Amino acid sequence: MRAVDIIEKKRDGIELSRQEIEYFVRGYTNGEIPDYQAAAWAMAVLLKGMTAEETTFLTLAMANSGEKLDLSHVVDIAVDKHSSGGVGDKTSIVVVPLVRACGLPVGKMSGHGLGFSGGTLDKLESIPGFRTNLSKDEFLHQLGTLGMVLSGQSLDLAPADGKFYALRDVTGTVQSIPLIASSIMSKKIAAGAQAIVLDVKVGHGAFMKTLDEARELAALMVSIGDLSGRDVAAVLSDMNQPLGQAVGNALEMKEAILTLRGEGPADFWAHCLEISSQMLVLGKRAETIEKARAMAQEALMTGQGLEYLRRLVDVQGGDVSYVDHPEKLPQAPIESMITAPVNGYLHEVNARLVGEAAVLLGAGRSKKGEEIDLAVGISVLVKVGDYVEVGQPLFLVHARDETTLNLAAEQLSAASVIADQPKAPLPLFYGLVSSD
Amino acid sequence: MRAVDIIEKKRDGIELSRQEIEYFVRGYTNGEIPDYQAAAWAMAVLLKGMTAEETTFLTLAMANSGEKLDLSHVVDIAVDKHSSGGVGDKTSIVVVPLVRACGLPVGKMSGHGLGFSGGTLDKLESIPGFRTNLSKDEFLHQLGTLGMVLSGQSLDLAPADGKFYALRDVTGTVQSIPLIASSIMSKKIAAGAQAIVLDVKVGHGAFMKTLDEARELAALMVSIGDLSGRDVAAVLSDMNQPLGQAVGNALEMKEAILTLRGEGPADFWAHCLEISSQMLVLGKRAETIEKARAMAQEALMTGQGLEYLRRLVDVQGGDVSYVDHPEKLPQAPIESMITAPVNGYLHEVNARLVGEAAVLLGAGRSKKGEEIDLAVGISVLVKVGDYVEVGQPLFLVHARDETTLNLAAEQLSAASVIADQPKAPLPLFYGLVSSD
Repeated sequence: MRAVDIIEKKRDGIELSRQEIEYFVRGYTNGEIPDYQAAAWAMAVLLKGMTAEETTFLTLAMANSGEKLDLSHVVDIAVDKHSSGGVGDKTSIVVVPLVRACGLPVGKMSGHGLGFSGGTLDKLESIPGFRTNLSKDEFLHQLGTLGMVLSGQSLDLAPADGKFYALRDVTGTVQSIPLIASSIMSKKIAAGAQAIVLDVKVGHGAFMKTLDEARELAALMVSIGDLSGRDVAAVLSDMNQPLGQAVGNALEMKEAILTLRGEGPADFWAHCLEISSQMLVLGKRAETIEKARAMAQEALMTGQGLEYLRRLVDVQGGDVSYVDHPEKLPQAPIESMITAPVNGYLHEVNARLVGEAAVLLGAGRSKKGEEIDLAVGISVLVKVGDYVEVGQPLFLVHARDETTLNLAAEQLSAASVIADQPKAPLPLFYGLVSSD
Repeated sequence: MRAVDIIEKKRDGIELSRQEIEYFVRGYTNGEIPDYQAAAWAMAVLLKGMTAEETTFLTLAMANSGEKLDLSHVVDIAVDKHSSGGVGDKTSIVVVPLVRACGLPVGKMSGHGLGFSGGTLDKLESIPGFRTNLSKDEFLHQLGTLGMVLSGQSLDLAPADGKFYALRDVTGTVQSIPLIASSIMSKKIAAGAQAIVLDVKVGHGAFMKTLDEARELAALMVSIGDLSGRDVAAVLSDMNQPLGQAVGNALEMKEAILTLRGEGPADFWAHCLEISSQMLVLGKRAETIEKARAMAQEALMTGQGLEYLRRLVDVQGGDVSYVDHPEKLPQAPIESMITAPVNGYLHEVNARLVGEAAVLLGAGRSKKGEEIDLAVGISVLVKVGDYVEVGQPLFLVHARDETTLNLAAEQLSAASVIADQPKAPLPLFYGLVSSD
């Protein structure tokens, strides 16, 4: 077998065999196949596509390219969740304790933020002492005892995907549905997931700009699940506007805590409820989505969800007084209100522009490893469809200095679009894709 | 400007600007743009195409990527020829002295053979002493005094093309008409050509397998000529079967000499006459193709063509007694006849299989720099459409030993296809593409 023949086959639109895909992934991972051949192949895949079978072979080959986590002796069923990333998405911090309170253990590996998309680990780190770098043994032990973990990648999961993603990033080959699907699924499978709830975001602030693309991605990931023996349900959710109110690390941590107290924004709670319910069904804690929803609602009302967040913070070394008194979380020195310049209906609250404004404030990274400011961010006070009068608050900016405040304010002035004619609110969800 | 943006633009089928193409070629040549980005770009070009304007910008950027030859102070008009490569193609050895005899100076850079396609330099080197490694100054001096040169590349012409071609070879991106066209034209332009006769071969033994592809390539190269101010005429010629009889270096040298004596195979002479005539017209030595044809025929009949080959060999250090007595050229120790197994008409004399048989005999290289045997080769004694009786000679194999003889004989048995029903001879030419 030769790499160039596999490239030419895909170039000519011919389906690759499992052997060919495994050969290519193995060769690329161990360095026998150079970057330039992988780049040509990726471009051919982007332009010619891959079948669900090919994408599954690619997913499994990448999942098998390094260490794998085996959770089968720790939990009865390993349920994971994945969000394709967005602005204001602090869902995991609410959902993991909530489903744990309903009896479903979850060991979830998250990441740090990059670009205008935030990262769960950064948000958790706004609680002093909270450790996100658990070792593999610590991860497994905590999952076995406490029944929940929220930590960084403790081992080299799917290194082929990591190497390949870095290459795709600089060769114009990121925007390929099969490559995106296999990248997401390979890491989840390597992390031991037997069932996965996917939160596929659609809109300005998401990777997938159109519903068609998002549906295609969701359907392909569900197919990969079917073909590889994993239960997968994909929720299509809106990311045209930010999720909830808070954008920025400590602000989002605070909003997650308030939500578990029953005091969070309605849209964000509805989102958490949907993801939790899907997880409870896949994890066989509830027979129907309605029963799952009732369980999750109950865990919120009784305070059990919040109690499990306290335990999670405590076990991972964080200061639980911050959960009890979220006003202790880091606060930015400057707060400045941005108000409506005219009367009218909000036609757009652009998630991407809000996310980029947060990066300008210092809440996000423009490249990996960059220092961020946990205190800064934006409170988004309006939703698409709202009627506002001139002077009414749209955004509350939390800044560390005047310079970044001005940069962010300028960016935010483009993020909201107000017009005379009424505008319907955006839906939270655009549907569910699952194998049933 | 960023390489990844240029890749994405081409990926999305958008026309690139001159600045973008120049940026990419310059960056790739000086190493700022890595192989993997060039590979992704090449695949995007292969699958999305390029306009004639884009291809011209690419051609000129590659032509300008290194040293260039300026022939304007040596000749009144610099006419070059290029063949896309084939089996039995010794045309330059006949044509260069012939047009020189008609008053048209030609300084031509040729190459060594690779794969089943022979190279002019190897054929010339079968004459003892013949130097094919003239320096740039020797090249220019000889062109100015004798009015003709046949030598290797004395300087680093279009290094971007050399680097890019090596990459394309291992990334499945060779078979792109715009990339092939710009590769050919960039070297000719860097070598100083103001007018170029292109011999675009079509068929089993050619790079272009179909007439449609060959026409597209020819038309694109003519457009590049138009857009870059070079006169270009492209002859579409058959390469389903070998050109002439001789395949192998000394055998082909001998056939070139015999042809200039008026004793060569009819098809090969007709081919040389066509190419010479086109060169004489582009070089403004003849007003019409008919007049050019008469001039070239005259140069053959009077022996002036042969006389100029003698002078060329002499000036480049070769032993002219080999031109006078071509039987002195290296001869293989074993000669073995392959005969027709049945009565019938020849439906195929597959140029590619014959060329590969010659490589098996040692006449060609499977990789660059490999030693070759100048004496070995194949005399192809039949043409498509011929009627043969069982036992009648098809090929005369010139081998150095029994092992290679047997390998070649086996290959050759697949090269000829004989059937009962009559078969029309193959045309020599499929047309001419020029800007007129």
